[in-house]
Amino acid sequence: MKPEVINFTQKLSTFQETFSPRVVGELNDYQFKVVKIQGDFVWHHHADTDEAFIVMKGALNIELRDRTVRLTEGEMFIVPKGVEHRPFAAEECHALLIEPRGVVNTGEAAGELTARNDVWA
Amino acid sequence: MKPEVINFTQKLSTFQETFSPRVVGELNDYQFKVVKIQGDFVWHHHADTDEAFIVMKGALNIELRDRTVRLTEGEMFIVPKGVEHRPFAAEECHALLIEPRGVVNTGEAAGELTARNDVWA
Repeated sequence: MKPEVINFTQKLSTFQETFSPRVVGELNDYQFKVVKIQGDFVWHHHADTDEAFIVMKGALNIELRDRTVRLTEGEMFIVPKGVEHRPFAAEECHALLIEPRGVVNTGEAAGELTARNDVWA
Repeated sequence: MKPEVINFTQKLSTFQETFSPRVVGELNDYQFKVVKIQGDFVWHHHADTDEAFIVMKGALNIELRDRTVRLTEGEMFIVPKGVEHRPFAAEECHALLIEPRGVVNTGEAAGELTARNDVWA
């Protein structure tokens, strides 16, 4: 497949669901996923991998057990492997996730917010 | 080390050199690097890895052997492993690179544009 330029805004315009990451590209065995976040996510962690969040629009809070970090457009936070975190956003936020292929959004917590994996935008 | 929020604009303000990527974060064995691009880079490829470019400011051209792709702010292009490419920009462009730790900017081509690796912003 001929690789094409990926426009994040265009990819984000193809769906409305929150907490439902869509893959937009792959780098070796890693995936780039765009996601819309509004409201509260569940506490979870990923035992085997770090996870990067880059905010494209709006503001994202990531609650950790010892503090809450806040990211706005043009900012990144990398949650270390095994660290419990809970993303939340008062207003709709658009973010880019980078993590290995196969990572489930709710980590070990599972539950009703678990999204189907490998859905492409 | 306590992970902190990474602001790309702030990191880019700490240096002026073009074609001199600075690491701003690590995700497992991958690195995020900010880079300023102006002028012509050399033809090269990376035999062992894909390489992602995300444009933060300005416009970036990536010449491939069969076409040239052009990315503007909010766009990404992933150069597949082994594919020859040559980035260039008429005016200063700011980009984010994502690739495994240890990748040299000029790939197999080496030469005077080869940057020192693992320099953090």
